[in-house]
Amino acid sequence: MPDTQMPVMSAEDLTVFLEREFPQVHKDFAVEEVRDMGIRVRLVVQDRHLRPGGTVSGPSMFALADVAVYLGVLAMIGPKGLAVTTSCSLDFMRKPVANTDLIAECTLLKLGRVLAVGDVLLYSDGDDKPVARSTMTYSIPPER
Amino acid sequence: MPDTQMPVMSAEDLTVFLEREFPQVHKDFAVEEVRDMGIRVRLVVQDRHLRPGGTVSGPSMFALADVAVYLGVLAMIGPKGLAVTTSCSLDFMRKPVANTDLIAECTLLKLGRVLAVGDVLLYSDGDDKPVARSTMTYSIPPER
Amino acid sequence: MPDTQMPVMSAEDLTVFLEREFPQVHKDFAVEEVRDMGIRVRLVVQDRHLRPGGTVSGPSMFALADVAVYLGVLAMIGPKGLAVTTSCSLDFMRKPVANTDLIAECTLLKLGRVLAVGDVLLYSDGDDKPVARSTMTYSIPPER
Amino acid sequence: MPDTQMPVMSAEDLTVFLEREFPQVHKDFAVEEVRDMGIRVRLVVQDRHLRPGGTVSGPSMFALADVAVYLGVLAMIGPKGLAVTTSCSLDFMRKPVANTDLIAECTLLKLGRVLAVGDVLLYSDGDDKPVARSTMTYSIPPER
Repeated sequence: MPDTQMPVMSAEDLTVFLEREFPQVHKDFAVEEVRDMGIRVRLVVQDRHLRPGGTVSGPSMFALADVAVYLGVLAMIGPKGLAVTTSCSLDFMRKPVANTDLIAECTLLKLGRVLAVGDVLLYSDGDDKPVARSTMTYSIPPER
Repeated sequence: MPDTQMPVMSAEDLTVFLEREFPQVHKDFAVEEVRDMGIRVRLVVQDRHLRPGGTVSGPSMFALADVAVYLGVLAMIGPKGLAVTTSCSLDFMRKPVANTDLIAECTLLKLGRVLAVGDVLLYSDGDDKPVARSTMTYSIPPER
Repeated sequence: MPDTQMPVMSAEDLTVFLEREFPQVHKDFAVEEVRDMGIRVRLVVQDRHLRPGGTVSGPSMFALADVAVYLGVLAMIGPKGLAVTTSCSLDFMRKPVANTDLIAECTLLKLGRVLAVGDVLLYSDGDDKPVARSTMTYSIPPER
Repeated sequence: MPDTQMPVMSAEDLTVFLEREFPQVHKDFAVEEVRDMGIRVRLVVQDRHLRPGGTVSGPSMFALADVAVYLGVLAMIGPKGLAVTTSCSLDFMRKPVANTDLIAECTLLKLGRVLAVGDVLLYSDGDDKPVARSTMTYSIPPER
């Protein structure tokens, strides 16, 4: 459906990249699968991701959606640390299951020369109804 | 994936509803398929939908996405004319093919008691890369 | 507040541009004021902009917000016909007053080399509560 | 401009509420001013809010915008802990100044019986160009 391309980075490559570039958060996220124009990323839930009541907070959902599109883009274009989020929409649809990892299923709808657009559905692990959806637009820096 | 339900209105029912309630636009739209929590609607492109160059205009894309979610919600809950759009996001990703119908593939991600959320991908008829995506939130009026 | 710049096109310049480039819609819109990084545009309401009940339709609100940001950008950078909308968010907050022009008050929050972001509040003429708000992101083509 | 109302909670009231209901984050946020249909909230930047390079992270910007609209709504309707974010749009426009607090200026555009809409501009403290903008829609629970 979208621009057909094959990934140039594997889940392992992305994990190493995350560990090196974002040491403060890399343990929060686990890359589970890299597909053509898509990726699955897990938020390994810890106390600081939770609101009172034990459900994942809005900022943690934003962070997961954002990192999923970022890593989905890098998987396709290689490790360019400078891609930046320019806009985002988020819809919160259901309460996440308490104390449960969150799974992001990301599909890249566009991977252009300067802009990439990724759609994300967020699920509580083991549940098949999405708790939230998000679209993230990334600006890709020109080659140097 | 989402709230599992079966439609209560068919494509034919929706067509009759559209004709009766929105006589000024009903010829613009053709309901092609009604699914559980989803619908496909065609914009039958006419001159007034086009920009210079012959591609479908932004407002026509908005109109198609909006009507697709509206009809997708009605298909599930019955003909309640008062559902209103409360918010929407749209991303324009590719130039539509000139002088070509636009197809909306809509999936309802949430169908709650007071809010419904629908995702839409828009395609130029016959092309498999989406020209735009949209999320529409509808407020559902309480039963009277 | 935003990037401080002065307009290079006046309301009259923009009106001539609209008439030449968009003959099919230029009578729908009247440029009322051009400011530094801002513009006010009126939708001169006609039958085709209305829904049953006489209120301005969603697609017409989208069209007005979109044209306001487009003209606001052109006012600052000159007549470059190729700027395109890349993403948009819209919130519908109140029912417009029936059979009444709609006023768009647009503020450019960013006017970068490749991306511009404009915020718009839409009012029924003479009413001081916004009926809708919108943010539009425009991609600005590189100099040729 | 919007629904004219006066706040029923002061900056001090909101601070006490935040401390009691959200002990894990209340030190991150300082309520600086409550206005009719508006509020100013500061993100007291700490290491965990920063990305490599010392600029405030996207999730921290989301968190600040979200809490600003939440507290802006509570200021007007009183301490109802159950208001929830239903949708949000965010545009990232400039890089925040490194190691600097972020200021949210929030205006409530709508405060209805069931939905509230707030617009937020985010600034690096002392800078007059917004680093980001956001709109948050909150669902307000019915009276019990």
